[in-house]
Amino acid sequence: MPPPALTRHRRELDEHLQSLVSRVQPPVLDRMIRYHMGWQDVDGAPSDNRGKALRPSLCMLACAAARGDPTRALPAAAAVELVHNFSLLHDEIQDHDRVRHHRPTVWTIWGEAQAINAGDALLALARLAVLQVTPGDETPALLSARALDELTLEMVEGQVMDLEFEETFDVDVAAYLTMIEKKTGALFDCSLRLGALAAGASQDVADRLGRSGRLMGLAFQIRDDMLGIWGSQTQTGKAVAADIRRRKKTLPIVYALSLSGESGRRVRDVFSAEVVSEQGVSDVLSSLDDINAQRYCSELAGEKKDEARAELRDEKLSAKGVAELSEVVDFLLERHY
Amino acid sequence: MPPPALTRHRRELDEHLQSLVSRVQPPVLDRMIRYHMGWQDVDGAPSDNRGKALRPSLCMLACAAARGDPTRALPAAAAVELVHNFSLLHDEIQDHDRVRHHRPTVWTIWGEAQAINAGDALLALARLAVLQVTPGDETPALLSARALDELTLEMVEGQVMDLEFEETFDVDVAAYLTMIEKKTGALFDCSLRLGALAAGASQDVADRLGRSGRLMGLAFQIRDDMLGIWGSQTQTGKAVAADIRRRKKTLPIVYALSLSGESGRRVRDVFSAEVVSEQGVSDVLSSLDDINAQRYCSELAGEKKDEARAELRDEKLSAKGVAELSEVVDFLLERHY
Repeated sequence: MPPPALTRHRRELDEHLQSLVSRVQPPVLDRMIRYHMGWQDVDGAPSDNRGKALRPSLCMLACAAARGDPTRALPAAAAVELVHNFSLLHDEIQDHDRVRHHRPTVWTIWGEAQAINAGDALLALARLAVLQVTPGDETPALLSARALDELTLEMVEGQVMDLEFEETFDVDVAAYLTMIEKKTGALFDCSLRLGALAAGASQDVADRLGRSGRLMGLAFQIRDDMLGIWGSQTQTGKAVAADIRRRKKTLPIVYALSLSGESGRRVRDVFSAEVVSEQGVSDVLSSLDDINAQRYCSELAGEKKDEARAELRDEKLSAKGVAELSEVVDFLLERHY
Repeated sequence: MPPPALTRHRRELDEHLQSLVSRVQPPVLDRMIRYHMGWQDVDGAPSDNRGKALRPSLCMLACAAARGDPTRALPAAAAVELVHNFSLLHDEIQDHDRVRHHRPTVWTIWGEAQAINAGDALLALARLAVLQVTPGDETPALLSARALDELTLEMVEGQVMDLEFEETFDVDVAAYLTMIEKKTGALFDCSLRLGALAAGASQDVADRLGRSGRLMGLAFQIRDDMLGIWGSQTQTGKAVAADIRRRKKTLPIVYALSLSGESGRRVRDVFSAEVVSEQGVSDVLSSLDDINAQRYCSELAGEKKDEARAELRDEKLSAKGVAELSEVVDFLLERHY
């Protein structure tokens, strides 16, 4: 069960997001965005396929941890959720993903060209969200806007690296961790940092929460990589060993490739083929077992989680707020979906 | 010859843009951006294939017209140039354009997926450009950032409409003008508006310059549409009647389609075929002659230009600044490239 802190402000967030999107025209752009956000089906009928809204929840919890009223972080929370959805939309096109969470992706329905536009529009909307400013709050609003852009740029840089890694076997664990820090960690950093800024926290506190978020993002991505190989279909919506079939070089694979020896060679052989056979899938799974890849990933995620929690030990933060954030971090690393 | 006002600040602008881009990593992203901006060739060797930098020049001229020091508008000028380049990069992917200004487009070299990232990075950089703020200037900076986002969103909406129009013959002149107002006019609006805001102008003056820019953008796009059909290859870098061969429904074509009678039917026939033959090209050209399409477009562009100049008649503006802006507008409508 997700901790209550993760869903507490869900209704306000959804209302806020919907009001931001309501200005969009023409109708086809509005439909693509509402479909992608999980609010509508292809025909425009209401549906509920919303995501977990993890990043905006972390943003609002960080605001509370920095002793602010969490609802002050709503514009920032909406902004990070929109940036996240912008990146998903473009990522689906780039990876040729036809399905996400059991639904056809936007580009398979409206075509790649219009899907690129829908992503671009989400990014512009994210910016407009964070620039909603109460008079007197100009300076924190500017700091938040700049942080959002810095971290969006970093996320795009991570996506560039991710696509480059697909073309090579010359990836080591350090380079992989740098890539996911950018691709996933940066937006988690942004979520917590913007929450702190919305609370009116000092730069020092904002930096600390940002660093904690970045580490949470790393732990989250490592957990996601593990689920892509060892998660079960009913829980994740993906086939078992989905990332092996897609020849995605996630952490367990990069770890295997980085070791000299039989396991790394077998993984490389399977990943070099055009299509991965069932035999290939089980070869990779047993190679990963041989090198204890699951334990390796699990321990690394645990380390990042501990580091993330260590950043939260600061008397300037609210003990209750920190406890709730920690609960969410624990949940992220125990989730099975 | 371009008026001197159009190139006066070119060196400062280029330096400013290059310094903004210098933070980008990894190398492949840096290379895509520098190639797209025309500063480097594919191998990374320096080259000069820079664009006209029309929008940033208008931004700085608008700042001077609003009685500001034009160099104060440099961050805003850089921002609009980056947004323009973001839109070109994604547009090339969407239209499958393999060549622009005699050079292969980014996606043909680095692939569509990485080209999407390069466009995304340019948009994030544009935002960072406009958020460079001198202390004390927080309020105009926020107004500028918000205007940039509003008008970027409007531009994306225009691009959505443009792609929709490709799928239908059911386009009238009014809908077409709305589309180009969004797709092209919005960023011209933004260029002049941000120049005014950088000068510390009142909202009233910023609105006036923005409206003038929007009308300039309309006139500019109509002129561009004319060059796409009646321009000559040496001057535009495109084949004669290039937009007919690409079956692009630009204003002359939309005008023909909107008329009942033989000319509209012939145009529709040619545009309905999978491939446009040489005979088709000359059929369309003679149909456009029959309905005086060139004069129609020229007069409409002239009207928009007059309206743009009328907006500049305001005693709050500097007479010298307005004269220079007007000279640039005249140039835009006489250019042959």
